[in-house]
Amino acid sequence: MVETISPRSGTAFTLDRGQTLTVIDPEGRQVADLLAYSRADTREVISSGRTLDYASRLYLTTGDRLYSNRSTVMLDIIADDVGRHDFLLTPCSKETFAIIYGDADPHRGCFGNLVAALAPYGIEPDAIPVAFNCFMNVPIDGSTGAFTVEPPLSRAGDTVTFRAEMDLIIGLTACSALQSNGGAFKPIQYRID
Amino acid sequence: MVETISPRSGTAFTLDRGQTLTVIDPEGRQVADLLAYSRADTREVISSGRTLDYASRLYLTTGDRLYSNRSTVMLDIIADDVGRHDFLLTPCSKETFAIIYGDADPHRGCFGNLVAALAPYGIEPDAIPVAFNCFMNVPIDGSTGAFTVEPPLSRAGDTVTFRAEMDLIIGLTACSALQSNGGAFKPIQYRID
Repeated sequence: MVETISPRSGTAFTLDRGQTLTVIDPEGRQVADLLAYSRADTREVISSGRTLDYASRLYLTTGDRLYSNRSTVMLDIIADDVGRHDFLLTPCSKETFAIIYGDADPHRGCFGNLVAALAPYGIEPDAIPVAFNCFMNVPIDGSTGAFTVEPPLSRAGDTVTFRAEMDLIIGLTACSALQSNGGAFKPIQYRID
Repeated sequence: MVETISPRSGTAFTLDRGQTLTVIDPEGRQVADLLAYSRADTREVISSGRTLDYASRLYLTTGDRLYSNRSTVMLDIIADDVGRHDFLLTPCSKETFAIIYGDADPHRGCFGNLVAALAPYGIEPDAIPVAFNCFMNVPIDGSTGAFTVEPPLSRAGDTVTFRAEMDLIIGLTACSALQSNGGAFKPIQYRID
């Protein structure tokens, strides 16, 4: 069954070891921030630093593994229509919108949406790390390290699929930052198999 | 007064708002992993994801600001002889040495050294995030996102200096990974002014 996450919102749910999670971009050019926590101990959490170190690559795709802060594999990427995701930047937040966009009355962003969705699982705001940002397109100038946030390369219906390698709590959003989503807020869908 | 961190070890200390911390590479080509926690609430911690997002650049240097997970400035980089540091990778650990180097009896690494040094401040192992890796040289291929760990560009006596923007607990190491340090383990020095 396909579930829909409304524009600029987020959700959380459990994913059992062996299940797959397919994240769907139904309209195209929409980012979804993905977090994963171990159900056995929520202090074990997805880690960009461990994952990138083991991959020796910033752009992850089919065949790559997402590690926890304890160097355990949490999720394997088993299918990917797009091949461009970001694993550098934290979920957008009130402060992101104030600092980067200069918003006077900023939206709570993916960060606020994840805080609300993960609270029932006992996960505190400070425990939200860098998310795996599905479909987020952050090209990098290798010589200077400068990067920009460009519209996603995903087209309507494109997907990325993960297999759980442990029992997980997943946080997932339809990203709330204009720049990350080509200037328009759209829904995200997902399916568990 | 200049303090010395022996090869493959680490330490922790407090740094008051307004004080400066100068990290010195006395022999050259040696990495130092730097962590920062707010003394007021150690759940507030240095954040690569927030910092990189606000800088829009992977390589940080003089004039750049290091943010916490709450989007507050913790440290400002006020001087830098080298201009190449890494803020992508987590401190090397037993698992790093097992997975990347295939070591049978792995060293506890910067991670283990930081765990031991930060324990007296009540900071748990799972609360160790991506460190600001002083002098670590991680060039990136912008087209593929692939990166390698190359010898630091620092020469004997080179320094990087940070000013504290809040009362902090600092963790600092002389990095324990062969690849990061041009194949030899050397000391790191630091000075607080």
